[in-house]
Amino acid sequence: MNEPNGIRGTFSKQRLAGMKRLLQKKYREEEGLFIVEGWKSLAEAVGAGIRFRTLLIVEGAADDAALLERLIRNADESFAVSEKELADVTDAVTPQGIAAVMPMFDPEAALRSMAPEQGIIVAADSVNDPGNLGTIIRTADWFGAAGVVIGEGSAEPYNPKTVRATMGSLFHLPVAHGVPLPAFLRRRRQEGWSIITTEVNGSELLGTVVPPERSVLVIGSESHGVSEEISSLADLRVAIPKFGTAESLNAAMACGIILSHFTMRRS
Amino acid sequence: MNEPNGIRGTFSKQRLAGMKRLLQKKYREEEGLFIVEGWKSLAEAVGAGIRFRTLLIVEGAADDAALLERLIRNADESFAVSEKELADVTDAVTPQGIAAVMPMFDPEAALRSMAPEQGIIVAADSVNDPGNLGTIIRTADWFGAAGVVIGEGSAEPYNPKTVRATMGSLFHLPVAHGVPLPAFLRRRRQEGWSIITTEVNGSELLGTVVPPERSVLVIGSESHGVSEEISSLADLRVAIPKFGTAESLNAAMACGIILSHFTMRRS
Repeated sequence: MNEPNGIRGTFSKQRLAGMKRLLQKKYREEEGLFIVEGWKSLAEAVGAGIRFRTLLIVEGAADDAALLERLIRNADESFAVSEKELADVTDAVTPQGIAAVMPMFDPEAALRSMAPEQGIIVAADSVNDPGNLGTIIRTADWFGAAGVVIGEGSAEPYNPKTVRATMGSLFHLPVAHGVPLPAFLRRRRQEGWSIITTEVNGSELLGTVVPPERSVLVIGSESHGVSEEISSLADLRVAIPKFGTAESLNAAMACGIILSHFTMRRS
Repeated sequence: MNEPNGIRGTFSKQRLAGMKRLLQKKYREEEGLFIVEGWKSLAEAVGAGIRFRTLLIVEGAADDAALLERLIRNADESFAVSEKELADVTDAVTPQGIAAVMPMFDPEAALRSMAPEQGIIVAADSVNDPGNLGTIIRTADWFGAAGVVIGEGSAEPYNPKTVRATMGSLFHLPVAHGVPLPAFLRRRRQEGWSIITTEVNGSELLGTVVPPERSVLVIGSESHGVSEEISSLADLRVAIPKFGTAESLNAAMACGIILSHFTMRRS
């Protein structure tokens, strides 16, 4: 039975264990579900039209009753849990007293919605660090990218560390995960998009490149860069000029620097 | 007794425990020492003229005998340890079989060496995330900054997470830690340096700003930005244009984007 405020009594140990499994990629993929924690991120998810399967709230954690009511209305079911129980199903260092289970985005639908007349799509080739991937999504959002496409070999956007590093941006722009990148890039190229890779030895120095009307900016892995197959598909191989002695830039950093130059140059 | 190759026998449990304490800020500060692990970083430290107090090596971990010999020659004492023992005194996820204890940089000497005719010093006001601080140092190195000055309220450069995130750049440019920032900024201002802050509501949009000859770029904390006192000392308060809907940029990202625009514009 629902209580008057929509919060039910007990979330069983069994269900807690089931939810906790979603901290692992394998189970997230099996069930197509993931966990988001924190008031702000959940508010953004509601704003993005995502309905929650389950909402867990620590008693007394809400200091915005209107927001709490909105989140409960957006959930199929809501439960009161202890702080310890909530900490058990999230991996946050500073848990905020609220978390929800929600469905992943449909990659096909996300890709279809990346169809601007002019703009940049960011593609992650083999970005393995979840925090880096989250920072890429957050930065792509800041610079108004048309979307983020995540290749099969990358960390996934539903990793709790990635979700956290996006700071809510996961819900601001289309994000497609598990995409076979070479096929995606070939298709976009046929449709007139320019493929741009970031390469330490790229032939085009950032600053001299005129950003194309519609482009896909591919970010490679920190250790190996973009794959040879993807490099061979590139129309432009861009290098960020180096003035000092560091061996490389962080992958998310390289992405943000190029996005900033492209968007500021076009505006 | 040293063995012929310079590696001694046993590193006692007591000494292991003493070294492990250096993973904590309190003991690092008391002793003025910190731990660096990994072949590449240690090679960079030698290149920077830093002598090791103690070097620990896992038997069989070296695949470059010449480098190993160079590291041993650079150490006051060297010990063979087990993988488990080494893992115990480092917090690396993928330990590389070698680590050393070395002295911190003298902040005063580091500050004195930041004296170019033209250039940028990066200052961290209250950058609390060790990884972010490391990325700032690495990026400052890439763009040829004159040095990195770290305020009293920030994470410190000798945190193992920071050391790792610098990817060796900690040994490439002067880094001064624990600096009272307002006094430092006032002094530099008197000497003709421009003080630049990054602020979400900054009056100068990046892209329209002409970088001054000599400037200190201050990066604030992610949650609160630069302090009021420091903002009041700024000659320029720079904002990075936003084209999308993210609420903010990661502090290291903001630093890298501004450095890239300033250095590329000047070159």
